[in-house]
Amino acid sequence: MTTDAVQTEGFSQTELNLALNFLEQIPFNKVLGLKPKLLTAERCEFSMAMKDDLVGNWLQGILHGGAISTALDVTGGAMALIATWQRLHRDDVPKEERPKKLSKLGTIDMRVDFLHPGKGKEFVASATLLRIGNKVAVTRMEFHNEDGELIAVGTGTYLCG
Amino acid sequence: MTTDAVQTEGFSQTELNLALNFLEQIPFNKVLGLKPKLLTAERCEFSMAMKDDLVGNWLQGILHGGAISTALDVTGGAMALIATWQRLHRDDVPKEERPKKLSKLGTIDMRVDFLHPGKGKEFVASATLLRIGNKVAVTRMEFHNEDGELIAVGTGTYLCG
Amino acid sequence: MTTDAVQTEGFSQTELNLALNFLEQIPFNKVLGLKPKLLTAERCEFSMAMKDDLVGNWLQGILHGGAISTALDVTGGAMALIATWQRLHRDDVPKEERPKKLSKLGTIDMRVDFLHPGKGKEFVASATLLRIGNKVAVTRMEFHNEDGELIAVGTGTYLCG
Amino acid sequence: MTTDAVQTEGFSQTELNLALNFLEQIPFNKVLGLKPKLLTAERCEFSMAMKDDLVGNWLQGILHGGAISTALDVTGGAMALIATWQRLHRDDVPKEERPKKLSKLGTIDMRVDFLHPGKGKEFVASATLLRIGNKVAVTRMEFHNEDGELIAVGTGTYLCG
Repeated sequence: MTTDAVQTEGFSQTELNLALNFLEQIPFNKVLGLKPKLLTAERCEFSMAMKDDLVGNWLQGILHGGAISTALDVTGGAMALIATWQRLHRDDVPKEERPKKLSKLGTIDMRVDFLHPGKGKEFVASATLLRIGNKVAVTRMEFHNEDGELIAVGTGTYLCG
Repeated sequence: MTTDAVQTEGFSQTELNLALNFLEQIPFNKVLGLKPKLLTAERCEFSMAMKDDLVGNWLQGILHGGAISTALDVTGGAMALIATWQRLHRDDVPKEERPKKLSKLGTIDMRVDFLHPGKGKEFVASATLLRIGNKVAVTRMEFHNEDGELIAVGTGTYLCG
Repeated sequence: MTTDAVQTEGFSQTELNLALNFLEQIPFNKVLGLKPKLLTAERCEFSMAMKDDLVGNWLQGILHGGAISTALDVTGGAMALIATWQRLHRDDVPKEERPKKLSKLGTIDMRVDFLHPGKGKEFVASATLLRIGNKVAVTRMEFHNEDGELIAVGTGTYLCG
Repeated sequence: MTTDAVQTEGFSQTELNLALNFLEQIPFNKVLGLKPKLLTAERCEFSMAMKDDLVGNWLQGILHGGAISTALDVTGGAMALIATWQRLHRDDVPKEERPKKLSKLGTIDMRVDFLHPGKGKEFVASATLLRIGNKVAVTRMEFHNEDGELIAVGTGTYLCG
């Protein structure tokens, strides 16, 4: 596994690798081929390559909306995870208590807007943090193809404490 | 393929079978195991069985949020498809022009609310119609497990003309 | 103030009147003329009468979308308030601690779908509870006119603990 | 009425003034004190000053969520209006046919995320265009106070043809 992720405040490289491993091992993420590419306090990115299984309209050979929604949810969730991890670090929550708190992280709700057909070979889902609180994180997501076309956007809220 | 779908106004049984076939043949729907169970003018239902590939949290063995989002989007889209078909019939749009119009159908945006963890063996995604216009259809979706627990709800808008 | 609200589990009539008073005294609610009509554990309703100030399109004399959004948010918030109150009661949280917890209640996010133009003289916004947890409540809202036409629907998530 | 709006492609100054006048004369916009500050093809802005009528929580003196939702919807709608106007111009739709098409413009649905309490004296709601099609426009909105704090974000879809 290679990633551009830099070590972020509160993360050791070991912990970062654990997080990357965790995200890559999720079964449905593997089905989609979602790979973490960037995990920082400001931005997270996952890549996803087009393949037959992900097609929604085989006449036009475009990505299924559900694959796009999944990529956005996963990327927003990773952003919420990193942000929560940093908050726990900032708040001096003991290291041994962090995994339990992180395990409660989950999507509350998500909106996806489909702007253009999912045409392309290599896609990137990215997320930025809008808010991190004691209980709720809010993230904004985007989904681009290799030509930089903005295919979809999303907003997600995540329970994080 | 077996289905409880009854013949709806404007649909011949042949057409209904075509629609069912179309929905089942979508590659990503097959990956998820989404099967149309009911396609009527008032309500659409798809079933989805739990399997390893769909897991999001393997410690807890629960469904990935992306699989739930996909099931809701597909079911809402089928509801919009049926409703649009009926509108074309009601408006006396010639049969040969209908496929072209239906081919433009696509999700504009969707919201998903995750209410409870996706635990279960057999899930049903259902959609009801909130609005069908000349250009936009709006549907409300629900996602239950075999115990009737409401796991997620959604709302979708679809371009339909 | 008259209301059809019945006394709900955990609420004394005095407390219910306090809640009603609180909701009616919110300045922006008064501008809109939002009046609580029903506050129960299953369903909340507010009425709102058409008036010049609330018009969004004066050629057609229809309600401003913002007035509809506000009515849905207020009604969903009241539903979350009642549900949280009941949860605090069920969990035997001391009465003196409840106001502090309730004061933290706020909207996390909301979606509104506008189905038909806001024509009418008397409107009712209603909310039902989809989920009440320790931290987040989820509600579904509807907005009807006096003819029973469904003008808009919404979904809201509320921080409640 | 003063505005920073520059003349945009397809707009004469007279037309721009008509649009500004139209937006300012909407009754509910006047109740809120919403004033257009910028109307360009890339971005629209409205200002709104705090006043007693707009308060949602009088203990804390913060803006009602409904006032924020309204400001975001109005600003996104103005962005969709400008973008549609430009599309009609680009597509050489005759000037006399444009008002009829613009009159059909309306919000399909909107999501609002409340990030921080609405504290402040002067607020700015801004919108940028995510997509303009023949039938649907999608906009992203933000709501800031005079300190530049991001209080809320939103996404809206608008019927525009």
